[in-house]
Amino acid sequence: MLRSIQFLGSYSGFLFHRLKLHGNHYRLSFITTSTTTRCFRQFRASSIRSESNPDVTSSSSSSAPATSRSIGSARKINFCQSCGGPTKHEIPDGDEKERAICTLCGKIAYENPKMVVGCLIEHDNKILLCKRKIQPSYGLWTLPAGYMEIGESATEGAIRETWEEAGAKVKVISPFAQLDIPLIGQTYLIFLAKLMTPHFSPGPESSECKLFALDDIPYESLSFSSMLITLKLYIEDIKVGKPKFHYGLINKWPGTSPSEIHAYTFDYHLRT
Amino acid sequence: MLRSIQFLGSYSGFLFHRLKLHGNHYRLSFITTSTTTRCFRQFRASSIRSESNPDVTSSSSSSAPATSRSIGSARKINFCQSCGGPTKHEIPDGDEKERAICTLCGKIAYENPKMVVGCLIEHDNKILLCKRKIQPSYGLWTLPAGYMEIGESATEGAIRETWEEAGAKVKVISPFAQLDIPLIGQTYLIFLAKLMTPHFSPGPESSECKLFALDDIPYESLSFSSMLITLKLYIEDIKVGKPKFHYGLINKWPGTSPSEIHAYTFDYHLRT
Repeated sequence: MLRSIQFLGSYSGFLFHRLKLHGNHYRLSFITTSTTTRCFRQFRASSIRSESNPDVTSSSSSSAPATSRSIGSARKINFCQSCGGPTKHEIPDGDEKERAICTLCGKIAYENPKMVVGCLIEHDNKILLCKRKIQPSYGLWTLPAGYMEIGESATEGAIRETWEEAGAKVKVISPFAQLDIPLIGQTYLIFLAKLMTPHFSPGPESSECKLFALDDIPYESLSFSSMLITLKLYIEDIKVGKPKFHYGLINKWPGTSPSEIHAYTFDYHLRT
Repeated sequence: MLRSIQFLGSYSGFLFHRLKLHGNHYRLSFITTSTTTRCFRQFRASSIRSESNPDVTSSSSSSAPATSRSIGSARKINFCQSCGGPTKHEIPDGDEKERAICTLCGKIAYENPKMVVGCLIEHDNKILLCKRKIQPSYGLWTLPAGYMEIGESATEGAIRETWEEAGAKVKVISPFAQLDIPLIGQTYLIFLAKLMTPHFSPGPESSECKLFALDDIPYESLSFSSMLITLKLYIEDIKVGKPKFHYGLINKWPGTSPSEIHAYTFDYHLRT
């Protein structure tokens, strides 16, 4: 199940960034050209909903620029999961980032981004979408996707989520897109897949599942910008040949707040 | 920094699996052919060290087959990070997996796989490796890699880790490999990269950094099987053309224990 996603915003190709490293610190700089990457036509997101991740976004700075978009969720960890001791929030020896450290047993609570895995299912030149019956984005269309679980691979997670949300048995064909959303600590991994049988039906989290011709995709009623970007990339690829693998960074524009849901850039787009 | 990785084992192409879904349960089945995936020559891992992840492996079943390789780490969560309340371990309503649920505030402690990000740095037909000065795998060679942090993208994490471990400023060229290791809840994302300047020097976690010609890669002294597989995939690609993007699942053979570090398969290999 997909319990969360975060705001996304407008899309811009031709914008790449890289880290410049200065001692123990790093900052982002933006460049406008790259001989080794390729980007694609600019498009704008529309009707993309703002969503909140209860684990993450409440600690996000509403005005944090891209240069300091660490979400600092360690401050939300008040107790040790192992022994129940209260935590202190310090930079451990040899580390560079503040962590929640147990004052009783000394255990450090590391936090890491979560992976959202899903399937872009091709069938008879159509794409399978699910209408969400849960919040966030109730009533809007999405690719079947959700959090990857401990003990499964990304493909297994994508297949499981597709079964849970669309009642569809699928075969994964190839990895299609990895889309990082650093502000909320999420990474999307979307696989191209095919129906193993031509059957599907909405699971408990979906009110409807439907195959859409590429010209009929409901862009104005998609649930998440990550899904919009995935579908746009797919259609761009189909127009010129066969799908490639895409890596990209969904990043809000510097100075914009998370509530400005259309103000995002799609940066560092790499294709393989 | 790379605080953990887990045992890996032998490598086998031509082995794929897929999920078969039965109501609320799923199981793995293995198939031997695929018209839509390509695999490559079999090779064997050797001299790959056993490593432990303090967060994960202690709860792994030593004899769990691939069909039930969930590591069940929820049982290690005894207290709520938010309120400090004791947890109970139950399957929440609408869920299918046991979780640690706070008995005071009701918060569910979800656990998800961690992403390890790193760089395969090409320079003058050589590859940059680091000799580890920390455990696990002290004294063995690795690509610079480590856990992706909240607030950064995979590429930013890979660049940061390369700076921290090899003192090298790099430019990411393309995504190269995603390697899932479900048993320990890790996913590797390795990017091809180039040195921005021809300088590098070992960071605090490395005793040495060195460029290796492809024929001189120290396969018998590599630190992790994920690194061995990454390098083998790269060299396979270089031999026949240019690097592709690889997805694969590092999986132990059914019936083998985590201590059997050479008994792994590299399954579900997809190239894009």
